[in-house]
Amino acid sequence: MKKTEIIDLSHTIEESMALFPGSSKPVITEISNHNTNGYLEHYISYNSHTGTHVDAPAHILEKGKPLTQYSIADFIGKGSCIDVSGLDVIDGNFIVKCKHILAQTEFALFYTGKSKSWGTEDYYKDFPVFTEYAAQLLGTFNLKGVAMDSISPDPIDSKDYIAHKTLLKYRILIIENLTALDQLTGKNFTFHAIPLKTNIADGSPIRAFAKLSL
Amino acid sequence: MKKTEIIDLSHTIEESMALFPGSSKPVITEISNHNTNGYLEHYISYNSHTGTHVDAPAHILEKGKPLTQYSIADFIGKGSCIDVSGLDVIDGNFIVKCKHILAQTEFALFYTGKSKSWGTEDYYKDFPVFTEYAAQLLGTFNLKGVAMDSISPDPIDSKDYIAHKTLLKYRILIIENLTALDQLTGKNFTFHAIPLKTNIADGSPIRAFAKLSL
Repeated sequence: MKKTEIIDLSHTIEESMALFPGSSKPVITEISNHNTNGYLEHYISYNSHTGTHVDAPAHILEKGKPLTQYSIADFIGKGSCIDVSGLDVIDGNFIVKCKHILAQTEFALFYTGKSKSWGTEDYYKDFPVFTEYAAQLLGTFNLKGVAMDSISPDPIDSKDYIAHKTLLKYRILIIENLTALDQLTGKNFTFHAIPLKTNIADGSPIRAFAKLSL
Repeated sequence: MKKTEIIDLSHTIEESMALFPGSSKPVITEISNHNTNGYLEHYISYNSHTGTHVDAPAHILEKGKPLTQYSIADFIGKGSCIDVSGLDVIDGNFIVKCKHILAQTEFALFYTGKSKSWGTEDYYKDFPVFTEYAAQLLGTFNLKGVAMDSISPDPIDSKDYIAHKTLLKYRILIIENLTALDQLTGKNFTFHAIPLKTNIADGSPIRAFAKLSL
């Protein structure tokens, strides 16, 4: 087999984790243990948009494609990591500048650097957001997904979710709250955004990782 | 990229699914929707050993290695699918007969055919189980995991979980409740058993899939 390095791009789901403001927190309960039962088991509960996760079109669009209609091949593909750290806005001009990268990738990962603030108030502030036109231009490429190491492609107090809506109309999956993207800039890799298989239409936490060819 | 076919080996997590006898069932609740909130979200709860899932040594062994100490590379590797359909017991002799396959694989998948009974009473009956000696012999190979399309490597009413204990002592992950293994017999593939990243030590549902080289 070809030699590869695997980089985990996922935050841990735990009770103390960062959440989208107002979102229900995960609950993890020990329900059996070695002393009493002879085995250790837990019961875990979380919102379908917890931590590192994928939004399907059905999350925002009433007739949007549900996650249940995506196959595993839709969650895996050639990835490219684009540095947007320090930007306030990702606009149409920026997307046009990246067109050569975007034309030959399936998952566009935007490295904002905000994962360094995961778990602090700063995580919810001053992250780069996408204009409607930038999202429309992204829709002209053959992308399976647009991903970022920040909480949202829209402003934290957005009422219209315009970047979400525009990307999801193009059936581009949105992947939020990645980490470790600093290890991917300038590299060739295959991106994986693997949800559990459930009957939930709107989205799911994922195990996100990159396979780098060495 | 090399052309591949991906086969999903996972059952769906849903309220009506098959469970290990006595296990708490998953609960899936809509907590916001398009009409009221402008977006669709769910809250999901399940036992850490629900559906297609992985057991880590910490599930049964008090000082066993926790799932949190396994990296993504531990969940991926060369797989082989061994037909055990029609057998009552997988014993030492059978494992010896498979030694050439086992010596060159990382995940040994045992095709019992029981996934055809998923969701019926028959799923809990008459599936092949591993003897202690078979499990010991499996421990002599360089296996990352032993997997099956049935509920357990031990009898359904086992009190000592001897196959579990033996495999887990060797730090071999146990993967239960796979499906679609009939599509893998005689094929070369890379097996993936991908859990979400949580702080739970004992196990996790996984998205299990095989990448076949075409």
